[in-house]
Order: sequence, then C-alpha cells, then structure tokens
Amino acid sequence: MPVGTLASVKGVPQDLLEDLGVQILLGNTYHLYLRPGVKAVRGMGGLHGFMSWDRAILTDSGGFQVFSLSELRKVTEDGVTFRSHLDGSSHFFSPESAMEAEIGLGADIIMAFDECTEFPAEKERARASMEMTLRWAERSKKYFEEHKHEVPWGSDRLSAISCRQNEMLRRFAPRNDKRVVIPDGATQSLFGIVQGGMEFDLRKESAERTVEIGFPGYAIGGLSVGEPREVTHEVVEATVEHLPADRPRYLMGVGTPEEIEQYARMGVDMMDCVLPTRAARHGLLFTSEGKISIKQARYATDSGPLDPACSCRVCGRYSRAYLRHLYAANEVLAQVLNTIHNLSFYLDTMLRVRHSIRLGEGARFHSGVSSQPKP
Amino acid sequence: MPVGTLASVKGVPQDLLEDLGVQILLGNTYHLYLRPGVKAVRGMGGLHGFMSWDRAILTDSGGFQVFSLSELRKVTEDGVTFRSHLDGSSHFFSPESAMEAEIGLGADIIMAFDECTEFPAEKERARASMEMTLRWAERSKKYFEEHKHEVPWGSDRLSAISCRQNEMLRRFAPRNDKRVVIPDGATQSLFGIVQGGMEFDLRKESAERTVEIGFPGYAIGGLSVGEPREVTHEVVEATVEHLPADRPRYLMGVGTPEEIEQYARMGVDMMDCVLPTRAARHGLLFTSEGKISIKQARYATDSGPLDPACSCRVCGRYSRAYLRHLYAANEVLAQVLNTIHNLSFYLDTMLRVRHSIRLGEGARFHSGVSSQPKP
Repeated sequence: MPVGTLASVKGVPQDLLEDLGVQILLGNTYHLYLRPGVKAVRGMGGLHGFMSWDRAILTDSGGFQVFSLSELRKVTEDGVTFRSHLDGSSHFFSPESAMEAEIGLGADIIMAFDECTEFPAEKERARASMEMTLRWAERSKKYFEEHKHEVPWGSDRLSAISCRQNEMLRRFAPRNDKRVVIPDGATQSLFGIVQGGMEFDLRKESAERTVEIGFPGYAIGGLSVGEPREVTHEVVEATVEHLPADRPRYLMGVGTPEEIEQYARMGVDMMDCVLPTRAARHGLLFTSEGKISIKQARYATDSGPLDPACSCRVCGRYSRAYLRHLYAANEVLAQVLNTIHNLSFYLDTMLRVRHSIRLGEGARFHSGVSSQPKP
Repeated sequence: MPVGTLASVKGVPQDLLEDLGVQILLGNTYHLYLRPGVKAVRGMGGLHGFMSWDRAILTDSGGFQVFSLSELRKVTEDGVTFRSHLDGSSHFFSPESAMEAEIGLGADIIMAFDECTEFPAEKERARASMEMTLRWAERSKKYFEEHKHEVPWGSDRLSAISCRQNEMLRRFAPRNDKRVVIPDGATQSLFGIVQGGMEFDLRKESAERTVEIGFPGYAIGGLSVGEPREVTHEVVEATVEHLPADRPRYLMGVGTPEEIEQYARMGVDMMDCVLPTRAARHGLLFTSEGKISIKQARYATDSGPLDPACSCRVCGRYSRAYLRHLYAANEVLAQVLNTIHNLSFYLDTMLRVRHSIRLGEGARFHSGVSSQPKP
C-alpha cells in the first residue's frame, strides 16, 4: 500500500496511481484529523469522495503518529492526550474517538486504536502495553459495531465495492469456498492489531487473544520502531503463524523491496511503507540492479534508462541524466517522476509475489485458502 | 508557449503536457547554460533528447535573464559580462556565444541575442540600445549561418520535424500557397527581436531594420519590464503592423488570458508567459468565472469543480475543497494539479482564438495568408 498521508501520495495525481495499478492506498488518521479535519472529509463523502479515489483505502488509527510525532503526550487507560505537531494545540484520542474519526474518514479498512510499545521495553512494560491494547481493541470493536452505519458512503460506493469484491473473489477465492460472503449494505472492515514488543510469547498471546475478540483481518503492529531488522523478521515469523490464514494478515510499516518479498513468503498479505515515496523525494531509487542515488555526478551524462528492466512511464521515457538534472536543479518534477518509478518498482515486486502464489509456488507461503490451485 | 525554464514545466510530466495539447515549449538559455550546461544537453541530442520531448521547443537568447537576474553585469559592444545568480561565478555572453549555446541546446526556434532596454529609459538611451540590438542581430545571424549545421539533431528529429511541418501545412496553409517550402535537412530557425523602448518611431525603425536583416520570424521584445499595461498594448499595436504578416510574430513575456486574446487579435502569432505556471504555484487559478485564490477558507467545503466549463483532468476529477486542502497542507500535488489546470485554461484560450481565425472571423486578425478561407 502506497502511503497517502494527507489524502495524496505526494506529487502523484490519482489517475497516474490508477495507471500504476495501485489497488489500495493508506491514509493517516492523525494527519487527516488535524488537516483538513474529519468533518470536512465526511462532508465530501469520506476520503473516497474527498480525494476522488474509487479504489480501496485503509486508515491507521492515529496511534502510531501520536506516539512518534506529537509532544507532551499523556497516556491513561482512557486514551491519549497529545499536542499537535503543527500548532501545539491539545487533542485527545481514545478508542472511541479514533473509531469516530476513522468512520468519518470512511476508508474501506480501518484499524483499532492501539498503543505502539516503544523500543526497547522491559518485558513487564511490554505486557502492560499489550494488555491495554487488548482492552482498547475491545472498546474499538464495541464502538465500531454501534456506529458502523454512520459511514459517509453513498450507494455509488457500495456498488463499487460489491463489483470489486466480486472481481477479487472470482480471481482469488478457491472453488466452493463459501466462507466469504458479500454482505448487503457493506460497511467498513475493522482490523485488530497485535502488539507485545519483541517478546515471542507475548506476541503469541496477543495474537490469540486478538483473534478471540474477532476481526475480519489482523495487523502486526509495534515493529519498525528502531529494533534491528533481524529482530523484526523473527517477531513477524513468531506472530504470523498465530493469525488465521483465511483472514488478511497485515504487517504495518515495512520495508525494503527484498523485505516485503520475504514477509509475503511468511504469509503476510498486506504491507504499507513510506520508503518508496520518501526515498524518492531524497533521490534514492530502487532498480533491478540495486539502489541508485540519482544525485551522483556519475549519472550526469548517463543516457540510459533508470532501470532497463522496468516498464514504468519514467523508465520508458527519461534518461538517468535528465532525472539527475531535475534532482540537482531542485525541480518538482524530480519528486513526481522518482515517486512514480519507486512505486512502480514496489508494485511490480508484489505483482511477482502474487503471480508466484497463483502459479502454486505459494504452497509454502500460506497454509490457508490462497495456496490452493486456482480453479 | 508554456515555460519550461530548466527543461521542465515545473511539476508536470511530459506525457501530461502532450495530453494537454502543448505544441511548443519555451526553455531559458541562461538557466540551462548554468544548469546542466550546454555541453551536457548537446551530448543528449539537444533539449529534445535531453527532456524527451518530440514536439517543438523555443529557447530565448539569455539576454533577458542576464538583465533581470544576474548582478554586477557589464555591457559593452562586445557582449555582457555577468555573475551567476546561483554561485556568483563570472560568465560572458556575446551574440556569438549565445548562438553557440542555443545551437548546442538544439531548440527548433532560437532567438537573436538582444539588449532588453530597461524601463523607464530616455529616448536617446532607447535609441542607443536599439542600435546595439540591431548590430547584435547581424552578428547573431552571421554566427548562426556559419554554424547552423552544428545543431545536435539526429535524422530522427529531422523526420519528426518534416512530418509535423507537413501536417501543419495541410491544416493551415491556403490553397496554392507556394511560398512555404519544407527544406531538406532542416536546421533551427533564428528569429530577430525588435526593441526600441516605449517609443513608437523607434519601434517602427527597429522593426523595419530587423526585417531588412531578414529572419524567418520576428519577436517583439523589451515589454513587460515594468511599464503600465496600456503602454504595452499601444507599443505592440504600433510594432506589429511593421512586421510581415506571413512570418510568425512573437510577443515575448505576456500575459493574462484576456491579454493574450487581445494580442492575438492584433496579429500576434506566438506568446510565452510564466503567469499560468507561476500563478499555479501560488494557488491562483484562472477559470471561466474569473481568477480564484484557492487558499481561501470559503473553498474548504466547496464540492464543485474548479471550473465547471473546463474539461481538463483536474476539473473533471477533483473538487475545490480537495484542491484547497492540498494547497493549505503544502502538498506537492497542489502545484502539479494547479499547473495542469492553468495551462489547460491558457491552451483552451488559444484554441478558441485559432478556431475563430479558421472560421474566418479572423479576417481582421491578419492581413496575410492565414485570413484566407480554409481550402
């Protein structure tokens, strides 16, 4: 999932994202709550109407940004008081108010309000944080069930969703699988989040108890918070096996192209990361020949394409010399083109992963439905 | 002509410019000479190859930027010594070196090196400046004629030009017009520039003597330098009548949408202006209902399109509320979308002008070939 923090994947118009094959975008509740505000987005029919994007959207709960961006936050059982990173104004997020915000934003998938445990954390602290996330998950689900009909979708959105779900089912669901049913009058899907720090036993317990609460999908949170990459890898491996294979398993906030392929092999179905878009803004480009820093003088006279193996509209048209010039001259088009390419590279990576799953190489990827041969 | 100062129309990929119907772009020799340098551009086959743009390009001579941007410039009969606005390094432009740069950049239309007379200027100063521009025009033409074969075009470019010229001839040339001939092995076209300050008699003299030197097209320079709009209007009117109607007449550096329509009515064939792109970056948008400052709070909940009469990809997809949010949140997409719309508005304006000329309402526009009815 490309990240569109403020209802925009920085620099790339929506129709170009569609051309790239983006199926789902991530929006950040914390940022959208501050600007332009939930009420404004709700008034335009939710994020879909506001940013004119018919395909799927996922919003996080704001929890992670509150922990990473805002100052002077105060966490209690009730929720989190925090100050805006923009103007210092004071705000309060609880499981209930975060759900209210996410329902107002109207994404297709929304996330329970969790506490992202800091790294490093003592085991007792990780347990206490996990327990609170579990209590907040129950409160999130309760509020959501009571208010899910308040989603600002019109009938257009609902029929668009049905069409897409039917299409997805036709393409991916195993024959005779009756477990997935398209509901009449679809609502948003609320996903639970597994925490537990870097402790395998806590992760197992968090996963099992979150599944007990019951969600249509599950996320692995609390990673990419400063721990070594090997630890991330081990914790994901130790967590994913305790999450049901017939529900989407979403690993939050990873990773490099190599990593997302590895996580997919472990059974992760969804990932989001700012890396392709943020790196693009710094002139760091992912290619089939490795990472390139386009600002380097060696590219000033390089008439070749950025990545000869890439068929995106950037590699098909522009030279490395031109991209280097745009970056060096601080031209806005550098960000636009670099972002398009990096997204294309990430999406191609996932396309390859999906392709190999469908070819049956994925038997070891999943223990669940999607490893069965296509009908 | 949209302005692409550094070989990019800020924020807009080339394929979107093509979709907008952009037929010709302007590049700035002064800026390109400093970054990435003429040699780098020449090495990539000129601007066309460098920025991957097959349609037409025009470069100015650098004269205007030397006068408006650089500090500590010193003008002599020989040329201009100036300091870079980027790093203060010292450089020298003469008619010969400016031609050398423009040939290396390889645009389709290049401009003679002129002195842009400052405003206000005493009549004697305007005359002296005009005389120097005439001498520099002769030197520009002489150097160009001796070096025009050095243009870095391959045969691809030449055949692309022939195709486009044939297409243009078929669409616009009157029946039996034998005056326009497509040369074998086309080169660039060097245009002369009329100066003369705000003095009508000097403008007439400058026009006549520039025509005597002989160029395939003529520009009106030295305007939009701080004079009142009415004066610009009068000087254009007093100049354009002394330029041959069967050659392109190019008014440099104007104007608002209303103005470019007025100047076209006077017989001006070509114009360039940073206004649509620069205004877009400041959130100023041109619409059929007047100019809009999208940052205003009144648009925060406006679900309507930016301009209901516009069919560009921005007006067809996004609301004013979304555009306002992007601008207020300092999102790069604001610049991208605003620029696309403003360019579309300008190009639509010129499309209307061309349409009315072809419908024959243009009898009073031109005394030359293009006023005759289409065969």
